[in-house]
Amino acid sequence: MTPGYSDSKNHPPPAVRRRIVAFAGGVGGAKLAHGLAQILPPEDLTIIVNTGDDFEHLGLYVCPDLDTVCYTLAGLANPETGWGRVSETWNAITNVEKLGGPAWFRLGDQDIATHLERTRRLKEGQTLSQITKDFCKAWGIKHTVLPMSDAPVRTVVVSDEGELAFQEYFVHRRCEPKVKGFRFDGVAGAEAVVGAREAVEAADAIVICPSNPWVSVDPILNVIPLNEWRGTKPVVAVSPIIGGKAVKGPAAKMFDELGIEPSAAAVASHYRTILAGFVLDKADLNMEDQIKKLNIETRVVNTLMNHLTDRTRLADDVLDFIGSL
Amino acid sequence: MTPGYSDSKNHPPPAVRRRIVAFAGGVGGAKLAHGLAQILPPEDLTIIVNTGDDFEHLGLYVCPDLDTVCYTLAGLANPETGWGRVSETWNAITNVEKLGGPAWFRLGDQDIATHLERTRRLKEGQTLSQITKDFCKAWGIKHTVLPMSDAPVRTVVVSDEGELAFQEYFVHRRCEPKVKGFRFDGVAGAEAVVGAREAVEAADAIVICPSNPWVSVDPILNVIPLNEWRGTKPVVAVSPIIGGKAVKGPAAKMFDELGIEPSAAAVASHYRTILAGFVLDKADLNMEDQIKKLNIETRVVNTLMNHLTDRTRLADDVLDFIGSL
Repeated sequence: MTPGYSDSKNHPPPAVRRRIVAFAGGVGGAKLAHGLAQILPPEDLTIIVNTGDDFEHLGLYVCPDLDTVCYTLAGLANPETGWGRVSETWNAITNVEKLGGPAWFRLGDQDIATHLERTRRLKEGQTLSQITKDFCKAWGIKHTVLPMSDAPVRTVVVSDEGELAFQEYFVHRRCEPKVKGFRFDGVAGAEAVVGAREAVEAADAIVICPSNPWVSVDPILNVIPLNEWRGTKPVVAVSPIIGGKAVKGPAAKMFDELGIEPSAAAVASHYRTILAGFVLDKADLNMEDQIKKLNIETRVVNTLMNHLTDRTRLADDVLDFIGSL
Repeated sequence: MTPGYSDSKNHPPPAVRRRIVAFAGGVGGAKLAHGLAQILPPEDLTIIVNTGDDFEHLGLYVCPDLDTVCYTLAGLANPETGWGRVSETWNAITNVEKLGGPAWFRLGDQDIATHLERTRRLKEGQTLSQITKDFCKAWGIKHTVLPMSDAPVRTVVVSDEGELAFQEYFVHRRCEPKVKGFRFDGVAGAEAVVGAREAVEAADAIVICPSNPWVSVDPILNVIPLNEWRGTKPVVAVSPIIGGKAVKGPAAKMFDELGIEPSAAAVASHYRTILAGFVLDKADLNMEDQIKKLNIETRVVNTLMNHLTDRTRLADDVLDFIGSL
C-alpha cells in the first residue's frame, strides 16, 4: 500500500453523489485533491491543474504543479519537501553541478524520468494531456487529472527587478524580488484541454483548492473563466492563508507587496465575482462577517493539512459545505 | 585516490620523450589510453576518440566512446560493465521504463548528468570539443581528450535487415543482424576538431588502440586519414582480436559476416596501408610471419587487459615497440 492511500479504505462513500471539479496548484492544492480522491469515486472527480509555472530546464519540460498533484495522488510524493518524490536520490543533479551546470532547480533521479519521458513524447507530437493521462495510468491514479491547457502558458512575475519567469522568481530567486504584478504569457490563445470544460459543465460544484490565488489559480481561471456557469453551480474556495500567513509559499508576501493585507478575507475578495462559498480556518473566525458581506457563504473549519487524515477531513468538510449551499 | 590512478605513482617516467596520439573507441581503446596516461605526461598524450556512435536518445546527446574514455581516465568507469560509471544508480531509467518509455539503452543516474549538461551546452551553441575540455577539467583529467570532430558523424550499419543506426544495431538489436557494410553519414564534411591534426603533426607516433576497426577506428581514420604522414612517423596498432575472438564487442562477428576470417592478421591487413607496426597477442604468435609479409613490423606480447596493471604494462610494451621502429 502506498502512503498516499493509507486512509482510503476507512472512509465511507458519500451519501449523495457529487461531481466535483477541483482547481489545483502545487502542494496545498494537491493535498486537498488527494483528500477529495479518498472520498469521491474516480468518475466524480476531475482535477484541473495549473501549468503556468511549467518551464524548460536542462532541456527537460518540467511541470511542477502537475507532477506534485500526480505524485501526491499516487502516493509517490515526498511528504517532507512538498515537491518531488519520496525516497528520491540526487545523483544526476549532483553530477550536473560538478560539471558546472545549473543545479538550482533540484531535480531528483526518479523525477527526472518523468521529465525525460514527457519531453520525449512532447517532441514526438503528443499533447501534455495525452501524456498526463498515460502517466496517471502508469502511476495507478484512477481520478482524472487534466493540465489546464495543452498550449504553453507562462506565468511572468513583474517585479521591482524587472520581469522574471516564474521558476526564476520562485526557486532561483527564492521569491526575494518584490512583486508588482503578474502576466500569463500565451493565455489569450490557450484553450482548455479537451474534457476540462465538459467536466465543469457536468460538475455539481467547483472547488478552488488552497493554492496561491495569484500564480496557481488565476492562470486556470484565465483559461477556464467560471463566470459563464455563475448561478448554475456553486464555486467554493478554500483559503490558502491562515492567520495572515500562507501555509506554504509566497501568497501572503504577494498580497502584501501588491498593497493588500494578506488574510483569508483578502483571498475571498480576490475570488468574489465567482464564489458562492468560502472555507476559512478557525484562526480566522473574526473574518467571517467581512466575507459574508461580500455575499459569500462561509464555513469555518480546521484547514491545515499536516497529516494524511487531515486531507480527507477537510475534503469531507468542503463536500458537506457544498451540500449546504 | 580514484581507482583509475591506483598504479600511476609507481611507474617510472619514460627514458625518452615520446609524444603520442592515440586513436580510441570504447572499452579496449579506453583501457590502453588509460595505460598510456599512466606513463606519459599530459603534454605528451592526446587521445582522439570516435564519435560515430554518438546518438540522441530520450532527447539527450549521448557520446558512448567519449564518455567511456573520459570515465576510464578519471577513474569513474564501471570496471564490470566496461561502460557507464562506477557506483551507479538506475532510478531515472527504471522510472522511464515504468512510464512506457524507451529503456533499452541503460543510462545511469550519474551518467545522465553528463548527457543532460552536454545537451544543454550544445543547444547553447558550444562545441563538443569545448564541452569535452570542460568536462575533463571537472573530472580531473589532465591529458588531452578530443572528440574526432565537432560535426556529427553517424555510423550506419548496413545489415541483412536493412540500415540501422549504430546504437540500434549494437545495443537495441544486440548485434544480431548480419553485417554487410558500414557507412559514416556526415563524414565527408566533418573536419577534425581544432588541435587534432596539430597533435598528429607534432606526435612522434600514432597508436591505434585495440578498438573495433570497422566502427570505432575507421570513423576516426575517415576524418583524419593518416596517409599524409606516412613515412614521417610510425603508426602502430594493437590487435583487438585474440585467438580469432574479439576481447569485447562484435569485431570478430563483423569480420566473419564480411567474409574475412577474424584474426589478428585480418586486423593488421585492414590497416595495412598506414601501419608501420602491429602489436599482437602471444596467442596469435603463429600469425607473425603473415603480418610481416604485409611489410608491417610486429611485437608479440600479452595484450589482454584484465587488471589495471595490465594497461600500463601493455602501454609500456607499445611505447617500447615504437622506440624500436
